[in-house]
Amino acid sequence: MTTDSKTQQIENLFPQVRVVLVETSHPGNIGAAARAMKNMGVCRLVLVAPQTFPHVKAIWRSASASDVVENALVVPSLDEAIAGCQLVIGTSARDRRIPWPMLDPKSCGEKVEAESRQGGEVALVFGREDHGLTNEELQKCHFHVNIPTGKSYSSLNLAMAVQVLCYELLQAQIRQENPDNVNKVEQPWDVAYASSDTVENFFVHLEETLIDVGFHDPETPRQLMTRLRRMFNRIRADQMEINILRGFMTAIQHKIGKHK
Amino acid sequence: MTTDSKTQQIENLFPQVRVVLVETSHPGNIGAAARAMKNMGVCRLVLVAPQTFPHVKAIWRSASASDVVENALVVPSLDEAIAGCQLVIGTSARDRRIPWPMLDPKSCGEKVEAESRQGGEVALVFGREDHGLTNEELQKCHFHVNIPTGKSYSSLNLAMAVQVLCYELLQAQIRQENPDNVNKVEQPWDVAYASSDTVENFFVHLEETLIDVGFHDPETPRQLMTRLRRMFNRIRADQMEINILRGFMTAIQHKIGKHK
Repeated sequence: MTTDSKTQQIENLFPQVRVVLVETSHPGNIGAAARAMKNMGVCRLVLVAPQTFPHVKAIWRSASASDVVENALVVPSLDEAIAGCQLVIGTSARDRRIPWPMLDPKSCGEKVEAESRQGGEVALVFGREDHGLTNEELQKCHFHVNIPTGKSYSSLNLAMAVQVLCYELLQAQIRQENPDNVNKVEQPWDVAYASSDTVENFFVHLEETLIDVGFHDPETPRQLMTRLRRMFNRIRADQMEINILRGFMTAIQHKIGKHK
Repeated sequence: MTTDSKTQQIENLFPQVRVVLVETSHPGNIGAAARAMKNMGVCRLVLVAPQTFPHVKAIWRSASASDVVENALVVPSLDEAIAGCQLVIGTSARDRRIPWPMLDPKSCGEKVEAESRQGGEVALVFGREDHGLTNEELQKCHFHVNIPTGKSYSSLNLAMAVQVLCYELLQAQIRQENPDNVNKVEQPWDVAYASSDTVENFFVHLEETLIDVGFHDPETPRQLMTRLRRMFNRIRADQMEINILRGFMTAIQHKIGKHK
């Protein structure tokens, strides 16, 4: 709880965002939530009347996020935890008596990212392990967020719920900062892709070799070259791969005395 | 590991999908991963040489997913864990020496959902808590998936990684089943994709042939097999293509008198 002298480097991608855990029972869950937060660049943790805290289990489970645990603010009430917030979002099971504006995790991430980018203070509020947030607490929230699950088991572990919502928050920031890059994760390749003519020359060499070894008869082609073309075009071979394949063909031809 | 008489209701939204955990150290992580899976409707857990299993901690941490833990299949090797799979995706840190086709969690969810909907067997492979998957293991995968994080702390807890990928899998299914949502749908392929063991056998035959023709020396491998594996995994060869390639190898071996 207290800030001790250990100074880990905190990278806070979301300085306006606080994660609020209400009356958490198990200190291990606090630690696991802290790790999940820090993995996603979220660092401000507020604990409302935790049952057992500080506790060494919170530190253990936080792994390298002990700074988040140690810097956590402990307050006695939800009101104090969300003081100063322009946007408060509470996690909720689907079926509440009074319907409330609902978000799914992705739109929650987008709303929190947008609000915090514009300087608004935001709280993401998570309830007790066994029975979540009370109706009174939920009514302090602008939105409720529900994490869709399968039907047979809908109760996520507390830290898992923190993980999913913080993941969607960082995803929203990544999309915001790379609008062209949405869903595109093309990694730079280490070797240049082969040009069309290089690939065509490879096909000529391949067909020649297939004939040389007696596997292919151009008189009865059986769509063999079509299938091989489709396959190798699907690869988008790079230059080194074409070199390897051509080296292999040449070695075969040498071995059977057909090399020109 | 054994199926005991307790009959919890298993709702398996993804009967073609297995989650594979390789050499997990902590049984608690196995339980937490099982819970994360079941929350998202994923039920098939395969454990490769777990360090401490079965263990009561796995049951505790699984909460109401003890059925997933008890039905887990324990195998000694990754090859056995992914046998019969047409699509194998491994979790990976970003910086590998040889780049591999990468997915982000969302596109991973979409690819796995599309493949399993079309009847393909899929494995999502997670490495050890402390150092992930080995390069050799990663080279058995068609794709690598990386969960984006903040810079200061990029190492997610194992079960958290399972949670994020299973969450994105269920999200993909929800989007797929919601006709309002415009999401790219993967085109069905005309021939079944080859299973992992079929592809592994092909690699064995390929390496043998490369040696036979004098193109490859296992003593000085020059990353040749790594590059060929990467290339052929990128294709995701179908069964007929593997038949063609193996027919070609056999023809070469016949021609040079090496056929067994």
